Amino acid sequence: MIEAEGLRSEAPPDEAALDRWRRLTIVPMMAAAALFLGAYAWPIIDPGIAAGWQRACDVAMFGIWVLFGADYLVRLRLAPRRWEFAKRNWFDLLILVAPMLRSLRLVQIIMVLGLLDKRAGLTLRANVARYAGAAAVLVVFCAALAVLDAERGVAGSVIRTFPDALWWAATTVTTVGYGDLYPVTAEGRLVAGVLFTAGIALLGVVTATLASWFVEKFNEGQESAAATQKQMAELTEEVRSLRAELAARGAGAGIAAGEAGSGRRP
Amino acid sequence: MIEAEGLRSEAPPDEAALDRWRRLTIVPMMAAAALFLGAYAWPIIDPGIAAGWQRACDVAMFGIWVLFGADYLVRLRLAPRRWEFAKRNWFDLLILVAPMLRSLRLVQIIMVLGLLDKRAGLTLRANVARYAGAAAVLVVFCAALAVLDAERGVAGSVIRTFPDALWWAATTVTTVGYGDLYPVTAEGRLVAGVLFTAGIALLGVVTATLASWFVEKFNEGQESAAATQKQMAELTEEVRSLRAELAARGAGAGIAAGEAGSGRRP
Amino acid sequence: MIEAEGLRSEAPPDEAALDRWRRLTIVPMMAAAALFLGAYAWPIIDPGIAAGWQRACDVAMFGIWVLFGADYLVRLRLAPRRWEFAKRNWFDLLILVAPMLRSLRLVQIIMVLGLLDKRAGLTLRANVARYAGAAAVLVVFCAALAVLDAERGVAGSVIRTFPDALWWAATTVTTVGYGDLYPVTAEGRLVAGVLFTAGIALLGVVTATLASWFVEKFNEGQESAAATQKQMAELTEEVRSLRAELAARGAGAGIAAGEAGSGRRP
Amino acid sequence: MIEAEGLRSEAPPDEAALDRWRRLTIVPMMAAAALFLGAYAWPIIDPGIAAGWQRACDVAMFGIWVLFGADYLVRLRLAPRRWEFAKRNWFDLLILVAPMLRSLRLVQIIMVLGLLDKRAGLTLRANVARYAGAAAVLVVFCAALAVLDAERGVAGSVIRTFPDALWWAATTVTTVGYGDLYPVTAEGRLVAGVLFTAGIALLGVVTATLASWFVEKFNEGQESAAATQKQMAELTEEVRSLRAELAARGAGAGIAAGEAGSGRRP
Repeated sequence: MIEAEGLRSEAPPDEAALDRWRRLTIVPMMAAAALFLGAYAWPIIDPGIAAGWQRACDVAMFGIWVLFGADYLVRLRLAPRRWEFAKRNWFDLLILVAPMLRSLRLVQIIMVLGLLDKRAGLTLRANVARYAGAAAVLVVFCAALAVLDAERGVAGSVIRTFPDALWWAATTVTTVGYGDLYPVTAEGRLVAGVLFTAGIALLGVVTATLASWFVEKFNEGQESAAATQKQMAELTEEVRSLRAELAARGAGAGIAAGEAGSGRRP
Repeated sequence: MIEAEGLRSEAPPDEAALDRWRRLTIVPMMAAAALFLGAYAWPIIDPGIAAGWQRACDVAMFGIWVLFGADYLVRLRLAPRRWEFAKRNWFDLLILVAPMLRSLRLVQIIMVLGLLDKRAGLTLRANVARYAGAAAVLVVFCAALAVLDAERGVAGSVIRTFPDALWWAATTVTTVGYGDLYPVTAEGRLVAGVLFTAGIALLGVVTATLASWFVEKFNEGQESAAATQKQMAELTEEVRSLRAELAARGAGAGIAAGEAGSGRRP
Repeated sequence: MIEAEGLRSEAPPDEAALDRWRRLTIVPMMAAAALFLGAYAWPIIDPGIAAGWQRACDVAMFGIWVLFGADYLVRLRLAPRRWEFAKRNWFDLLILVAPMLRSLRLVQIIMVLGLLDKRAGLTLRANVARYAGAAAVLVVFCAALAVLDAERGVAGSVIRTFPDALWWAATTVTTVGYGDLYPVTAEGRLVAGVLFTAGIALLGVVTATLASWFVEKFNEGQESAAATQKQMAELTEEVRSLRAELAARGAGAGIAAGEAGSGRRP
Repeated sequence: MIEAEGLRSEAPPDEAALDRWRRLTIVPMMAAAALFLGAYAWPIIDPGIAAGWQRACDVAMFGIWVLFGADYLVRLRLAPRRWEFAKRNWFDLLILVAPMLRSLRLVQIIMVLGLLDKRAGLTLRANVARYAGAAAVLVVFCAALAVLDAERGVAGSVIRTFPDALWWAATTVTTVGYGDLYPVTAEGRLVAGVLFTAGIALLGVVTATLASWFVEKFNEGQESAAATQKQMAELTEEVRSLRAELAARGAGAGIAAGEAGSGRRP
């Protein structure tokens, strides 16, 4: 998640081996995550899937789960301080050892996106906006899948088709919440909770991006602070040459004045 | 849209011909957009419209669609780098070639407003607030028309009159979402999705405008940054005249001291 | 409204007579507004009010309406540029000449609060927070009254008691919008629209106040900008005395050097 | 509450005895609050509790209420200006003397968390985010308990189990508000009102934290203000040594020039 990454960016960074591993594995990890999403999505969107394909999807998901587990173990081994690594990445572990909640594993996909985040150099405001938009679309899509998986076939549930699930996810992430559709199972509500949190974070990112841009655009102080720095550099240059000149003069004047005060020059 | 314009404002600007074309066509384009909105709105608000008027509205909308297409082609021809122009304006093209979704064309009207945006010099905070307010009213009006067009006459729909559609749009753009009214068709929900996004952007603009204003008003740093710049200019002047004076003196003193150190003056 | 006041604060301020009038009338205007609110609220909260008291309330409301009209005329006469005054205060006039919408007159009470706003010196962040809180409570109370006035006794309405109306207003201003209660009349929905807008403004004020405070508290730049200004003042003093000293020395050195370079001193 | 603490931080601070008392009592107070929460939660979550345990919980809650009252009295006695203390802590008193509303006492627990707030040195942005997250979880848990306590067993209520109450609280604090569940009693609605307010504050804290971080990260002015301060320190040092040098030279030159201008040196 964007803010979490940013806020804990004060973490100790002497993790060269870990970083190299991440750089090497990011493309395969992204591919595996995309495959996982596909294998998760297909049987949910198409309930009349053939038993063979259903099994293939299950096998693919299991394989990728093993892969993610192996990646975690390698990262743990590479980490300079393992206990700290485990503490910082407790969520990765939780998802790996709690595989009964299939929908939780989707969160892992979003976390792989988090790896991308570090590569994507989020130093430009426009990139943050684009990244937040892409994350929102992915979160809504995953939440729709997960809630449909949890709710379909449950007595009393109102979310029964994928378009309905997408509509529900869109009304939820924006905190509109009409209430024409809502989850009734515990797992569906857990998915909704993740979606609420993502919605609040999304609203926050939109507003904060605009706010930082407006502060730059409208606030006199911001502009003048940048201008001041430029002027400051010039002034420092000015004073330095003044001092050099004086030192030079001092040498000459000192000769003229019979070396008086020569000991006090720094 | 306000933020999109702002965030991509780093685009290369050597498009004098394009700019001149825009300046020339902005008034006719606005008029055409208003006419389009009228021709779109009338048959929706008044379902008992005479067949002749209905046909007139259809003809007007088709004519304006052709006009917008011609405008796109002219702009494409005027653009210095056509491929980049097409990439940056992919949304214009999408709307032009996807005319089966009539409601999407309303988005074009709002994009024409986007042209206005560039003229309107959004450099004052109050202008941004006014512009956001006007955009919100227009978006709510267009969304009410589009959702009514999509929902009326569909079995199970609850939005059946224009006042109801307006009420629904207002509860949606503010993310209140009572749920007494909600769209049930795919097209109606697509309209709602656009409206959600506009609502979040609107909330963001309101909050960000206030935040940048409060930062300017309350934060000591802002005020002192502006004051510092003024003082900095004075100080630089001071140091410069000090140096000039010293140089002058140096010339005099140099004579007195028998030209000592004369070679070291810059 | 807070933000409107602030954003248009660039208005030309040579309105001494107008200001004096406002200072004189603010206490009676506040009292009249409170009386108006009481006379408006009583028959709505207590539907079984005696006919005599009902009439008394009507008379009081009419009297205060006349008073507000007189105040408008006096202010119009005192204004240096009357046309500009009328343009800037178009909303006051609208409410005065549109008295069929009784609920709109409640807005006037909030505008009287706006007068108070100018007195209350909203230069401290804590004051803005307090003022926004008080305004939110007043807006919720007025909206509950107005919506109950509009909805009670209408077929199909669900807001029928004052506690229900208060609950509805609270769920609306915070944009929660459960949808257990919602207005069904045009006037009730107009009240809701005002309440939505107030809700968005309220959310914006809360977030913006926190944001400006966090920027001050957490952002190094802010603190250092203030510190820089202090240091800048010291440095300027330093350079000035350096120059004065040099000028003094120059005079001495000039004498010693036989007045060389004396013409070049500024 | 976070913002309230921060906004009123201008309060006169010569309250050494009060601070010492708070430091001594914070751990027992936290323990008492946790015990109170447990004793409050148990009979609500488990309606089939044995009568003996129910009584034990009631006794524990009464005991802690007495403890909180004693703490208030000690703090009142220790305060340098008692009247001001009572005014600033009016809410503590209100909760103590209004014990018929059991759910209100939960607010006290959150206020004890407020004490912690002062200890937790909320000077880092990440700490504020963590604190806000923890407060949100606690508020949602307490609100779920309180609303279930108020609603269960009331005719027409829809919140009847603890999972439902938690779900309702989560949809409310995020201002989603589906409306599948909502309180119908006056006490339940009061709880909802507190939860709305917390939700708005939470949204505000999330957005404001992000905004202050984005302003630091993206806005040139911020960075250059910090850089300027560093440069300013260097420049001031430069000018000071320039002046010292000049003074030293002046002494020498003064000797050479026959003490001319010696009276003008500061």
